[in-house]
Amino acid sequence: MQADHLLKQVAFIKEIDKLKYIQRKTKLFNSNRHENDAEHSWHLAMMTLVLASHANKPIDVLKVVKMVLIHDIVEIDAGDTFMYDAAKNHTNTEEELIAAKRIFGLLPQEQAAEYIAIWQEFEEGITDEATFARSMDRFEPLLQNTSNNGGTWAEFDVPYANVYEKKKVIADGSASIWKYAEQLINESVEKGVLKK
Amino acid sequence: MQADHLLKQVAFIKEIDKLKYIQRKTKLFNSNRHENDAEHSWHLAMMTLVLASHANKPIDVLKVVKMVLIHDIVEIDAGDTFMYDAAKNHTNTEEELIAAKRIFGLLPQEQAAEYIAIWQEFEEGITDEATFARSMDRFEPLLQNTSNNGGTWAEFDVPYANVYEKKKVIADGSASIWKYAEQLINESVEKGVLKK
Repeated sequence: MQADHLLKQVAFIKEIDKLKYIQRKTKLFNSNRHENDAEHSWHLAMMTLVLASHANKPIDVLKVVKMVLIHDIVEIDAGDTFMYDAAKNHTNTEEELIAAKRIFGLLPQEQAAEYIAIWQEFEEGITDEATFARSMDRFEPLLQNTSNNGGTWAEFDVPYANVYEKKKVIADGSASIWKYAEQLINESVEKGVLKK
Repeated sequence: MQADHLLKQVAFIKEIDKLKYIQRKTKLFNSNRHENDAEHSWHLAMMTLVLASHANKPIDVLKVVKMVLIHDIVEIDAGDTFMYDAAKNHTNTEEELIAAKRIFGLLPQEQAAEYIAIWQEFEEGITDEATFARSMDRFEPLLQNTSNNGGTWAEFDVPYANVYEKKKVIADGSASIWKYAEQLINESVEKGVLKK
């Protein structure tokens, strides 16, 4: 049983290597090099560890780390959706659910069910763990864009109102991080790299 | 205090972005593209989550995940050392300790101390968490090399005895994973991509 499980787990471990090829719109800090989903997921996990004490409510850190490590795995099949894409909403699409079932489905049955459930909890964004995980997911590109003279905001002419609307959910996970994030957004407006 | 902490934590979060530029010798699965340290660390964290039940002894999964997420951060200053480098031993060098103190030292004092201690625990490789974390660190490139016709073993003419010597520590973390890993090594010998 254990040996059979191991073969399934190794198949999953090999499959998720593909996350390293999924390129995001955002770029690394002070850089022109695009970030990929595996790097992004690693960074969110590090941010979760380091910033957990800023959460509005006590969180299960391991669960949040699991969420951020796996949250983009569905993009192996469904591709990355740009946060400010007007045509395609970045929500739990049917395509992503099919992807989750296929990819996590490579794992032994119980683990597959566990990870599909964790991914769905992240997507729904209701629990304390999910709101904190989602605030990390919004905070990282904000830090990147503000280190890159507006980054994707400037590149794709994203107006202030859209940025503010997307980023204010950081407050649901952490009021103190949102206070800091809001300052960075305002500084971008003052610098002229984010248009009001 | 919290606000002051946040500024230090953000400085650390920005600094560790550099891990994405540290290129390893090993290549992605079935690929010619080198892996970087951030991708590698993400993959080890995923492997830890998925394979934890194979550990010889019960482990604190969150602690192992912390270990594998941060284990290569010192390479931002000290650079990557190839596992089979004859001249430079891959042990806890003085250079790496200085790097750990500088980089984790960006964090608030208590967190800095916590992460330096976790990194040292990993390097010493004695606790159940450290032996499992180290077995993940040896298992991932083994999976990559066996999917790449011998990968770095073939590329740098690493003999079987060296591979076996380095990889057998997997058994300290997990007997069942080592049993599987040993099969893969033997198959590489049979295929002629690893020379006995």
